[in-house]
Amino acid sequence: MGNKLTKRAEDYSKWYNELVIKADLAENSGVRGMMVIKPYGYAIWEKMQAELDRMFKETGHENAYFPLLIPKSYFSKEASHVDGFAKECAVVTHYRLKNDENGKGIVVDESAKLEEELIIRPTSETIIWDSYRKWIQSYRDLPLLINQWANVMRWEMRTRLFLRTAEFLWQEGHTAHETKEEAIEEARKMQGVYAEFAENFMAMPVIKGTKTESERFAGALDTYTIEALMQDGKALQAGTSHFLGQNFAKAFDVKYTNREGVLDYVWATSWGVSTRLMGALVMSHSDDHGLVLPPKLAPIQVAVVPIYKSEEQLEKINQRVGELVKELRGRGISVKYDNRTTYKPGWKFAEYELKGVPIRLAMGPRDLESNTIELARRDTLEKEIVQQGDLTDRVEDLLIQIQDNLFKKALDFRDDLITEVDNFEDFKEVVKHKGGFVSAHWDGTAETEEKIKSLTKATIRCIPLDATMDEGNCVLTGKRSEKRVLFAKAY
Amino acid sequence: MGNKLTKRAEDYSKWYNELVIKADLAENSGVRGMMVIKPYGYAIWEKMQAELDRMFKETGHENAYFPLLIPKSYFSKEASHVDGFAKECAVVTHYRLKNDENGKGIVVDESAKLEEELIIRPTSETIIWDSYRKWIQSYRDLPLLINQWANVMRWEMRTRLFLRTAEFLWQEGHTAHETKEEAIEEARKMQGVYAEFAENFMAMPVIKGTKTESERFAGALDTYTIEALMQDGKALQAGTSHFLGQNFAKAFDVKYTNREGVLDYVWATSWGVSTRLMGALVMSHSDDHGLVLPPKLAPIQVAVVPIYKSEEQLEKINQRVGELVKELRGRGISVKYDNRTTYKPGWKFAEYELKGVPIRLAMGPRDLESNTIELARRDTLEKEIVQQGDLTDRVEDLLIQIQDNLFKKALDFRDDLITEVDNFEDFKEVVKHKGGFVSAHWDGTAETEEKIKSLTKATIRCIPLDATMDEGNCVLTGKRSEKRVLFAKAY
Repeated sequence: MGNKLTKRAEDYSKWYNELVIKADLAENSGVRGMMVIKPYGYAIWEKMQAELDRMFKETGHENAYFPLLIPKSYFSKEASHVDGFAKECAVVTHYRLKNDENGKGIVVDESAKLEEELIIRPTSETIIWDSYRKWIQSYRDLPLLINQWANVMRWEMRTRLFLRTAEFLWQEGHTAHETKEEAIEEARKMQGVYAEFAENFMAMPVIKGTKTESERFAGALDTYTIEALMQDGKALQAGTSHFLGQNFAKAFDVKYTNREGVLDYVWATSWGVSTRLMGALVMSHSDDHGLVLPPKLAPIQVAVVPIYKSEEQLEKINQRVGELVKELRGRGISVKYDNRTTYKPGWKFAEYELKGVPIRLAMGPRDLESNTIELARRDTLEKEIVQQGDLTDRVEDLLIQIQDNLFKKALDFRDDLITEVDNFEDFKEVVKHKGGFVSAHWDGTAETEEKIKSLTKATIRCIPLDATMDEGNCVLTGKRSEKRVLFAKAY
Repeated sequence: MGNKLTKRAEDYSKWYNELVIKADLAENSGVRGMMVIKPYGYAIWEKMQAELDRMFKETGHENAYFPLLIPKSYFSKEASHVDGFAKECAVVTHYRLKNDENGKGIVVDESAKLEEELIIRPTSETIIWDSYRKWIQSYRDLPLLINQWANVMRWEMRTRLFLRTAEFLWQEGHTAHETKEEAIEEARKMQGVYAEFAENFMAMPVIKGTKTESERFAGALDTYTIEALMQDGKALQAGTSHFLGQNFAKAFDVKYTNREGVLDYVWATSWGVSTRLMGALVMSHSDDHGLVLPPKLAPIQVAVVPIYKSEEQLEKINQRVGELVKELRGRGISVKYDNRTTYKPGWKFAEYELKGVPIRLAMGPRDLESNTIELARRDTLEKEIVQQGDLTDRVEDLLIQIQDNLFKKALDFRDDLITEVDNFEDFKEVVKHKGGFVSAHWDGTAETEEKIKSLTKATIRCIPLDATMDEGNCVLTGKRSEKRVLFAKAY
């Protein structure tokens, strides 16, 4: 440790990169664009997974697993999908290596060339719909509500840990329905699940909306999104849910006999969130001292550090802390008692601060005498002295308070950064200097959207679901518009 | 359903293949050698994962995630590892597709050729030890106890669902230690964890032993294995744990400063189990009627089917069953109440029998009157009438009984199929006609091992850990031997 973090105000991007590495969340591997998720980072991801998985199951979904490799030809079956996904991807062309005849180590065995190249999945619609054709015959087989936890690969040229990596972990839901209405309801429901997860667990406020045509998933008729705002005023797309219409059913010939006995194509959705959420979590709450984790996703909710001069003191502290830890764990609180003798208390304090542990306790010889313990909360950095008898209740309350406080703080920050503008001068000014979401009228054309993007680097993040009808004039062209949309520079 | 399973006695292999598909566990995909794990199969795998993950964490391990793709050159760094793994594997050579200039769809963009080919991980020692070099400096960083849940790929020519597939799911533990003794202890400990899991959760008895040199993991100094016996008398290697010595530390230059301040190479282990366990589970207990699942791994422990003639009867049954289901779930039992009106009771009975649900309940109008319910257990196919008031206790007891019964049955079967032989005529006879494990003396040479294999197709499954010193003569060569080893034909 020791070496300090760059401050956010100085260089936000550098601060993020340093923090992810120093807090032991992830690091770059020896393979270009691919990261190693370290145990501490993975423990946070596991907590996210567990909550999301529970929410998916509570809404009737089951998990399954489909192949990593997809034949190249599958991508060509859905016209817009192929343009979106069959480009920058990892291509498997051979299935064997051999010893080089000239002794130069191992080389590709040219005789083991695949007849058709296989692509490492960038997303699994094609391989999954190829299976659904066999699984769906009648309305009795519907709805089919399936989720997959998997790794996927998109050959990104510029990568950043968690935010944009060639390989990432995600979940992808793929559902099939009898009617258009039911599929749209499913897509919206999952957007709601994502929003609930982001707000209640990540303590990250999000805006629910739909994407414009140019920002839609390749193959979707509608993309529902949740958009969050990071501390540097840039937006981050945190999860998307797509209404796919009958596009994939037609591409993969998935028909069912409906209740009237007539053959028809099924209706589809797909939806996903990824390890990108780890980046969003880091950027939502952390500060110049390090990570700040919401208690509901913190692998360690409470860290306890003993302060002692003699072996004898340590033994007494061990005993007293042991009892307190047992009580805390009894309430389902995850506690780490760090009585390693190889590190000093100051080092440990810095370590748990850097790693965003919500509550840090410290017990010294005086606490033993006075039956007290020192408590420091990570979000506000405030300290207090607590009577040992009150500790469990206090910690339990405080974990809830910290969770709420993080959400409220992020919400206030976000709400302050939604600016309504009505002319393009203000628009440019806000995008350039204030940042955040700009709420403005737009004439609904892809041309205007593109032009605004090229002039300001701001894109339409979403058309908010709760946008009220409010006629006005497009901020660029002055043409009539029926509601405001949200623009922002984005990750 | 309707179409019956082939009987085990008729064609065991065909029975297995049919059962995996009919019970909705898995199916072949459109990609050669790669399977789709269907929701019911995946739900069993999730139960296995949850228990194993808990056991790994209880023994101090943390999860992490490493890249899917490994540079070709990494494999060459450990001499024996390259021979074992860098052969039949999926090779990524390009990172882009493009539209064909002649309008023939999408083709590989030859300008996007990788400088160095990347291999889809067949196992992750090399990429993980490349990271460990950065993670380990001092004895304070040890032991490093890490596990990864991941997909891996080995380009198998002949594949079978779960038992041998090109892509499979597994966990791989990779640990680093200060001393040789500690690493050996870790490798043995994890063999013990696997054995405990197999016996207590899968109800599958296993023999713990070590592999002979020729059957060892490529790069290991010792491989600890658990070996199970399937109902056709063939052995199945169910999990392995390897003591890797300092081989990978040397190959990837992973040194640490020891307690004396001297630089030394660390000591390593790796260990894994895979979706192959699904095949082992199916083959251990299932019968000619379908799957038989041990209650501890059954996604549905109890299925309830209503039998009714009128809507009114169904409503009454729904109400009564609703109360009973609530009680059962209150005890942590997973229950499915199948009151779908689109399927008949007989169809449902067959379905839950095929899917191995441990207990099936049925309630009809007469049960309503007499406060009873019909209970059928899957393992023995016995039926009984239970008073509704006694149901919860009875089910709870029975789930434990069924779990125990399955283990005991498998153990008796296995023990009957361990045959001691002392001459090669008997050896051949037992291997050919009786099957199972043959306990015989072996002179300890790879030549004899190979010769026996080529003459009988039986291989040395393991040198049992609990083998007592028992001098004798090699069953083939007559040379001196100090203990018996176990031979068998194997999956």
